[in-house]
Amino acid sequence: MTGTLDPALLDRFAAIVGERHALRDIAETAPYLTERRALFAGISPLVLRPGSVDEVSRIMQLATQTRTPIVPQGGNTGLVGAQMPDRSGGQVVLSLSRLNRIREIDTLSNTVTAEAGVVLEALHAAVDAADRLFPLSLGSQGSCEIGGNLSSNAGGTGVLAYGNARELCLGLEVVLPTGEVFDDLRKLKKDNTGYDLKNLFIGAEGTLGVITAAVLKLFARPKGREVAWVGLKSPQAALDLFGRATDQAGGSLTAFELISDMVLSFAVRHIADTHAPLQGEWPWHVLIEISSGRSAKDARTLMEEVLIAALEEEIAGDAVIASSLAQASAFWRLRESLSDSQRPEGGSIKHDISVPVASIPQFIERGAKAVAAVCPGARIACFGHMGDGNLHYNISQPVGMEAEAFLGLYPQMNKAVHDLVREMNGSISAEHGIGQMKRAELIATSQPIAIDLMRRMKAAFDPAGIMNPGKVI
Amino acid sequence: MTGTLDPALLDRFAAIVGERHALRDIAETAPYLTERRALFAGISPLVLRPGSVDEVSRIMQLATQTRTPIVPQGGNTGLVGAQMPDRSGGQVVLSLSRLNRIREIDTLSNTVTAEAGVVLEALHAAVDAADRLFPLSLGSQGSCEIGGNLSSNAGGTGVLAYGNARELCLGLEVVLPTGEVFDDLRKLKKDNTGYDLKNLFIGAEGTLGVITAAVLKLFARPKGREVAWVGLKSPQAALDLFGRATDQAGGSLTAFELISDMVLSFAVRHIADTHAPLQGEWPWHVLIEISSGRSAKDARTLMEEVLIAALEEEIAGDAVIASSLAQASAFWRLRESLSDSQRPEGGSIKHDISVPVASIPQFIERGAKAVAAVCPGARIACFGHMGDGNLHYNISQPVGMEAEAFLGLYPQMNKAVHDLVREMNGSISAEHGIGQMKRAELIATSQPIAIDLMRRMKAAFDPAGIMNPGKVI
Repeated sequence: MTGTLDPALLDRFAAIVGERHALRDIAETAPYLTERRALFAGISPLVLRPGSVDEVSRIMQLATQTRTPIVPQGGNTGLVGAQMPDRSGGQVVLSLSRLNRIREIDTLSNTVTAEAGVVLEALHAAVDAADRLFPLSLGSQGSCEIGGNLSSNAGGTGVLAYGNARELCLGLEVVLPTGEVFDDLRKLKKDNTGYDLKNLFIGAEGTLGVITAAVLKLFARPKGREVAWVGLKSPQAALDLFGRATDQAGGSLTAFELISDMVLSFAVRHIADTHAPLQGEWPWHVLIEISSGRSAKDARTLMEEVLIAALEEEIAGDAVIASSLAQASAFWRLRESLSDSQRPEGGSIKHDISVPVASIPQFIERGAKAVAAVCPGARIACFGHMGDGNLHYNISQPVGMEAEAFLGLYPQMNKAVHDLVREMNGSISAEHGIGQMKRAELIATSQPIAIDLMRRMKAAFDPAGIMNPGKVI
Repeated sequence: MTGTLDPALLDRFAAIVGERHALRDIAETAPYLTERRALFAGISPLVLRPGSVDEVSRIMQLATQTRTPIVPQGGNTGLVGAQMPDRSGGQVVLSLSRLNRIREIDTLSNTVTAEAGVVLEALHAAVDAADRLFPLSLGSQGSCEIGGNLSSNAGGTGVLAYGNARELCLGLEVVLPTGEVFDDLRKLKKDNTGYDLKNLFIGAEGTLGVITAAVLKLFARPKGREVAWVGLKSPQAALDLFGRATDQAGGSLTAFELISDMVLSFAVRHIADTHAPLQGEWPWHVLIEISSGRSAKDARTLMEEVLIAALEEEIAGDAVIASSLAQASAFWRLRESLSDSQRPEGGSIKHDISVPVASIPQFIERGAKAVAAVCPGARIACFGHMGDGNLHYNISQPVGMEAEAFLGLYPQMNKAVHDLVREMNGSISAEHGIGQMKRAELIATSQPIAIDLMRRMKAAFDPAGIMNPGKVI
């Protein structure tokens, strides 16, 4: 199955990395050609696994010479199909997974220089051993890779205090479509020498160049960390609690996750060894994490102050602070399991949206009406990073409905939710990116001038159009 | 003096803003055609002062039609000549100062939407009245404007805790060279919908488009703030103190300014009502600011803990905490006066550099040798934002030397300092930008591929080459 690519050309690519690292057998390429949710499946005659930046460079050189489309891939955990080739068989997959060296940990400048293929969890472990924190934290951290995290400007649960992947990156090494290496691996906190090239490659989903390494910021590990679970009567109460927690804890507020009772009930029902942290019934829940750079006691005191005030003012209905590391982990596991917990409930239509933080209660109220208008009885499994204005606004099918019938409403449901998002000046992709999934919608609904500028940028960086074609723009 | 521009064309431009706001008289245009240090003086037959985004748009439309070069200008405080037209008389100055409306302060989402011409100090006052903090803080804040701050990605003393102008901006409104308006005034903390256009315009010094408004982040005002002055024996001791203060105070460490005794002695000698905060003689000094979101007492306790530990461990030689707001202001005034204090000491050759924070002691040691090799007896007036790795590494002439003879060494001195910066993977423009001043050096000393990418970007956004030509790239 060589698709439209000449076998002699495939041999030339394979020669760069060595036959062992040039996968052509369907059994070997299969893991690179579909993804966990099986929404996107690609066809490709060749998966290249280079072992050095030089090999990446030579691959891109050959790709430019021969106009061969290249699809860069990291840990293959992306949710919008950016890492998947199309189904023509005419695109080569470039896996960065073997570029997995941590080149340097600098505890004085608080930086780590890591190659694109370093798995996020492995990076955590390495900097942990150096008594530092790299705060990017995602559900997929056991398999996602740094290059993919940067290419998709990954978010996750640490954004509130530390920012997205973008904010955590000081410098990049990028192989351009021509094979030229742009070495911008700087450790500088301030550098105003010309246009910001770094931020262009971050979030470009491999359409402008191939990120091969990065300098990332490290932080002191918190000396204390407390996790609490709060029951509330409404999203407005959650917003009030967020305001209060920000006011009292400031930068020590390291997570503020909103969870609807609907999706919590799914998790408790379907995920082994989980139970609701609070006794009473609350329509909304918040997981709060407070971290202190000072001491364990300080984190505890802060958390108690926030919760006592919130309970006294009746912002919070009930609250429990995790009494052990094990319980804190259980709270977090519950939060991380929400996405999976929807599966046994049938068809699900997912949205990764953001609105201004202050608009969240209004969005939830209006969203419920919009969803019900498309499909009465649909169950809204809403949860997300409230402090960032980012909700995973997922819709599970009504009980008893055929999954297929429900999923047939995908376009209408999507449109209803995204129209509301746009009306409220929000984003239809807060953290997952555009990839294949939202490309048509991005192009159709953005300001024409924004699309025009993106296209000009794409043409300027990748005139031959070989970098991950069909993605983003 | 209409230079190469046709008077009829000038009339067409003037008609857009009205004669009153189209300055042609030399007495009226003069303030726009030179800057405070008189390093850059331009010639222009016309300074336009539009009063609306629509007028800016029509100006750019006409400029594109007629291929007229436009030089955007904010508060005219830039230090590298980016805001100055050349001396051909063929460029029109576009002052954004009349676009000075604060469109909205949103205390729930913690954002302010301000037009380009809002003076930084006026913005401070407005958000202060809403009980919020906008942490960008510069020596020139009484006259610099938000549009210029963003176009130059301004730094200043608040970067350590809050980041550069870039990090403080959530959304932009930009008029493109064609006159099209790119409205990206979002309040979103997370938005992964395509290429990062915002960060391209930030720091582009008006060469890609005209920033007309921005959404900026606001923060809670600290409840307590303490300022201390510390005497130390070496830059290494200052680095150790920085490590300790970061460890103990974390995000509450809001300033860490390094000051050499040489430049402090200039200030005490020449600036009215200043005196050295400490009795003894110390070769190096640090101004520390700690802010607490919790309470005044908390800031005090933190500062005391940091200083007591540093004194006990003999990292710090001596230290004094400002005992009143007046004394805290005096410490800051001393810091802010350092740049001016060099003038009475004769000729000065200035550098705005950054290196990785951990390399600062080594840079200072090697820099002294490099400077002495070019000009024995030259006095190094070194100070800056140590926590950001950013030093204003200014060289005052030897006592008794002719200023002109010293300034004749400018190219050699510059080269000696910048060569060292490059060798240490630093930046030759940490916060002031490139403008006219460092353009040739940027082009000559950067990786060719970086320059190539910047040129492609410039050509993609400004194909007619009318946006602030001769700047940056």
